[in-house]
Order: sequence, then C-alpha cells, then structure tokens
Amino acid sequence: MSRVLIIGGGGMVGQKLAARLLHDGLPGHNGLEITLFDMGFSPAGVAGTTQIIGNISEPSTSAKLIAERPDVIFHLAAIVSGEAETNFEKGWQINMMSMWHLLEALRHEHGLSGGSYTPRVVFTSSIAVFGGPFPDKINDEFLSAPQTSYGAQKAICELMLSDFSRKGFVDGLSLRLPTICVRPGKPNLAASSFFSGIIREPLNGQQAILPVPDTVRHWHASPRAAAGFLCHAATLDTALLKGRRALNLPGLSCTVAEQIEALRGAAGQKAVDLIVAKPDPAIMAIVSGWPRDFDPKRAIDLGFKAETRFDEIIETYIKDDLPKPAT
Amino acid sequence: MSRVLIIGGGGMVGQKLAARLLHDGLPGHNGLEITLFDMGFSPAGVAGTTQIIGNISEPSTSAKLIAERPDVIFHLAAIVSGEAETNFEKGWQINMMSMWHLLEALRHEHGLSGGSYTPRVVFTSSIAVFGGPFPDKINDEFLSAPQTSYGAQKAICELMLSDFSRKGFVDGLSLRLPTICVRPGKPNLAASSFFSGIIREPLNGQQAILPVPDTVRHWHASPRAAAGFLCHAATLDTALLKGRRALNLPGLSCTVAEQIEALRGAAGQKAVDLIVAKPDPAIMAIVSGWPRDFDPKRAIDLGFKAETRFDEIIETYIKDDLPKPAT
Repeated sequence: MSRVLIIGGGGMVGQKLAARLLHDGLPGHNGLEITLFDMGFSPAGVAGTTQIIGNISEPSTSAKLIAERPDVIFHLAAIVSGEAETNFEKGWQINMMSMWHLLEALRHEHGLSGGSYTPRVVFTSSIAVFGGPFPDKINDEFLSAPQTSYGAQKAICELMLSDFSRKGFVDGLSLRLPTICVRPGKPNLAASSFFSGIIREPLNGQQAILPVPDTVRHWHASPRAAAGFLCHAATLDTALLKGRRALNLPGLSCTVAEQIEALRGAAGQKAVDLIVAKPDPAIMAIVSGWPRDFDPKRAIDLGFKAETRFDEIIETYIKDDLPKPAT
Repeated sequence: MSRVLIIGGGGMVGQKLAARLLHDGLPGHNGLEITLFDMGFSPAGVAGTTQIIGNISEPSTSAKLIAERPDVIFHLAAIVSGEAETNFEKGWQINMMSMWHLLEALRHEHGLSGGSYTPRVVFTSSIAVFGGPFPDKINDEFLSAPQTSYGAQKAICELMLSDFSRKGFVDGLSLRLPTICVRPGKPNLAASSFFSGIIREPLNGQQAILPVPDTVRHWHASPRAAAGFLCHAATLDTALLKGRRALNLPGLSCTVAEQIEALRGAAGQKAVDLIVAKPDPAIMAIVSGWPRDFDPKRAIDLGFKAETRFDEIIETYIKDDLPKPAT
C-alpha cells in the first residue's frame, strides 16, 4: 500500500486527480491511501479519501503532513493569478513560502530516515512563468521571465524543487499546466476564469462575460487532461529529465473566436448569444502578457497527452462535468 | 548628496566598486555618501567610506541598514558556489533568504514613505543561473536551468527582484556577471577560483594548481570591468529593460589553454612552468555544468562594456592589483 498526499486536494484539479487515482491507481503501486489537504472541502468530496483541513502557509503544517512519509506528494495549493496580483503579501506567503516550508520539512525527514525517504513531489506550475515578448511558439529552451507575481512565485518554486531534487532530498518535477478549460463550477479570481466561463455558462443556459477581444489566443487543456498529466508525472522516470525538471506540457492553442465557434458547433447560436462582450482593461493587461502557443516537444516525447481540438475539450466538459438535468 | 549602500562591500568586487564610486561619482548624483556592509573588512579598507559589520541573513539587519533610505543599493553578498554546494542550508539562508528580507524591508520602507522611496537595487547574479546542455553561444532568451544550488539561489533572487520592481517597490536589475578574473589576493572557495589562480600565482612567482583540462572554455571579465558594470547599472534607465530585469553581461570567452598562452605572452615560459595540472573531479563536475560563451546583445546595446582579449585582462591585473616589489 502506498501513501499519496494531495496538497490543495480540495480544489477542482485536486478532486479530479483524487477520483482518478482511486479509479485507476498508479503503475508500480499496489493500492493507494489518499490524503487530501486544503483550507476547506465541498460537502460532496471524494469517497475513499482522508480529508485534512489546515493552512499550508503555516511553517509547522508541512512537517505534520509528511510525518507518515507519503510516497507521492502532489503540491497543487496556490493563490490564483488575479488574487496574487492584488494581494502581494498573501501571494508570496502561500505560493512561494509554502513550497519552501514543504521542501525543508521533506529534507529534514529525508535526514531522519537516514537518506532512504525520497518521495516523488509533483508540483503544478503554470505557463504564467513566461512573459512577453514571445516567439510564435514557445519551445522547451525559452526563458522564464514572468510578468505577474503568480508567475514569479511559480518559477521560484520550480527552481527550489529542482535543486532539492538534484541534491537527492526529494525526487520532484514541475508541470507547467496550460490554462485548464472548461473548469466546472463557479468563476474564480483567476484572470483566466473567463476562458472557461464563456463555454460553461452558455452550456448551462446562463450569460457569460467576455472581458477581452475574441482575437486573444491562448493555450488550453481540459481538467481530465490535467489529472492525466499529474498521474503520468507521479511514476515517470525522472532520470529522463536530465536535470531539467520543469516541463512545458502539451495543450491546444486557439483564439477566443475559435472557442466560440466550437461552442456554436456543440450547442448552437442560442448558446453563443449568451456571451456578452464587456472589455476589462485589468484582465486584458494580465492576459496580454501570457503565452499563446507552445512546441512542447520534451513533454510529448515523455508521454504526456492532451486534447488536439477545442471540440474535444467541450465534449469532455459535457461528459465529465455538465450538470445533468433532473429527471 | 546621495546615499549608496554596498551589501557585501568588504569583498573584492565591493571594494573595487567603492573605490571607483569615490573616484568617479555617479552621473546625476551630486556627491556620494558610501556605506559598506559585510561580515568583516580587511584592515586596509577604502578611505572615505563608512563600514558596518553584521550578518545579512538576520531578518532584522536589512531594516536597520535601509532606515536612512539609501538612493542606490548594491547587493553583492553571497556564499560562493563551492561553499553553497557543500553547505546547503547556509547557501539558501544567505544567498536566497537575505534577498527576501532585504526586499521585504524595502517594500515596508516604500510604504512608510507614502510610495516616494523607490531605490535603485543592483544585484550581482551570475552565469551559474544557466545549466547545460548549452548552445554554442547563450543568447538573451536562453532558459535559466541551474545545476548548482548557488545558481538556483541567484536565479530566485532575480525573480524576486524583478517582481518587486514591477510592482514599483524598488527599481532593480540583476547583472549576471561573468567569472571575475584575475581576482587579486588569495584563492577562495568558489569552484571557479583556479581561473584566477593560474594567472595570479605565477605572476607572483608562486605555484598554481590547475584542476581541469586546458580545453575547458569559460566566460571572463576583469574586476575593473565588474566595477564598471555595477556603476553603469546604478544609473541606467530601467524602462529600457522592458520588464526583463536580468541581464547577461559582456565578457570574453576563452579556453584555459588560451589563458595560459596569454600568460606566456605577458610573463614568459617561467611563469607557465609554475602551473601544475592536478585533476579534481569535484571541481570538474561543477565547472562542466557552466556556460562557455554568450551573445549578450541586450547588455551591449545598453552600454555595458568588457575586455575583448585575455591579454587585456592580464594587463588590467598587473596594473590594478599585482603587488609592486618593495623598492
């Protein structure tokens, strides 16, 4: 039996990941005991997991969480981009210092174990580590020059995790997730929230605000693909990474206009008519500094997989997450 | 009168910088009051400066140091690469956490000033932020994927300084210095120490150890060039950086064999005979992960200048630093 800890396990991706791990297990692990840690959980929850509530930015929290030496740790907890931009102090404490406390706790535990405890740590980074000007496609050697606090914090966590891994205290890798779309549930404070909203709300018969021009191009993957990336990373042979432990993941590049066309194909003009253009300069300023397209050769060669058409992303949302009408 | 604070002002580059600032001043500043901070100072010192002794990794130190609101802050303090590799904890505390405490103190002071205090912060980063495999020449868009703790810590400080600058708390930039050669004085714990040793010791009639093959290629600039970079950065218009506040600086790419040929030209075969090959796998492992050549177009366009031949670097050492025989 192997132990899995999901920090940020109450969030959307954490819940998808937990459900998938329960269903599929992990290659090479004979059964999984899954613990989810977060500030809070929705009442529904994922049956068959243990839930722990707490604050990951407390220095002592990490030590308690890892006392039972989980074999695989997913670190998904973060303040989202929009909030990290408006609440500078909170962003740095939760997005950066939490990783530092976690890694220091793991290094301490590694020492206590006489060097035998070296868990796999999978960290969800972001394409926000990149800042413009961009090439048409960002390749695997393009610099990380973030233009948001969120991006800077994620880039710093990648560097910490790489160095603690190089020294053998942990065995980590960082996944630069595309924007996850279509997110189920409610809008959140992420500046990217509308990319999901303009699909999700119309499919649920509700109005959606589009705060940017429809020429905006962006990089997407579904929640199902995100859970797949994380599971794949949990058992990947990290020797194949050759010391570069941050990966640009596969995704799908499309414009907002192309997203809207795919929505029209799936749900007709009636759905499209629910999208209301309402330009928001603050969101546009953040989004205009984000990447638009990638050539993620390393991750594809390492076996990471994502959707190739936005139609598929909408189909995945309808299948996995669209609330079914009461019957 | 402007105030200048040099953190790490007791080190070799800090002393060169202080002497140069005293001699040349800074454009746009009508006189300079210079304060040097370090763990200790050589008895000689730089006349006309104030010296303060302390430990920059103490969280309260930064607040005290900046209480008088220096206009320009040079942050040069660091544990060198070899020591950061062997003393993991000390490296992270001094090389990373000190920058965090300094920036937080400056953000606090910025708030107290009602937003009017936004000092220039010049940070000495390093080409150790890069890790192999490398292109023949590293351009200004090549990723930072360090393979040493020192490199990771420097890369993290760059990201912090950029984000605190983007938010307007400070006005900072990071200079990725080439290896400084020929360093005067004694060997230090840096893995790069021998690059200076094989020139300096023979010019002083002493034996020098060469721990790597003479085919090793590396990237150099003189202490005089380093002081010049720092002074140039102190008054550069940072709007020209367009949000990318870490710069690869100009330098000189040459092999150890070419260094030795230049030594032969300057001091003859007798000097070259003092170099003793004694391979050291630990040093070779670190150095083999370092960059060899750059195309630092941005920094050159911004007016940073360095030597173009290793002969010049030796001439600079002889003129600026070679102890004169007693007469």
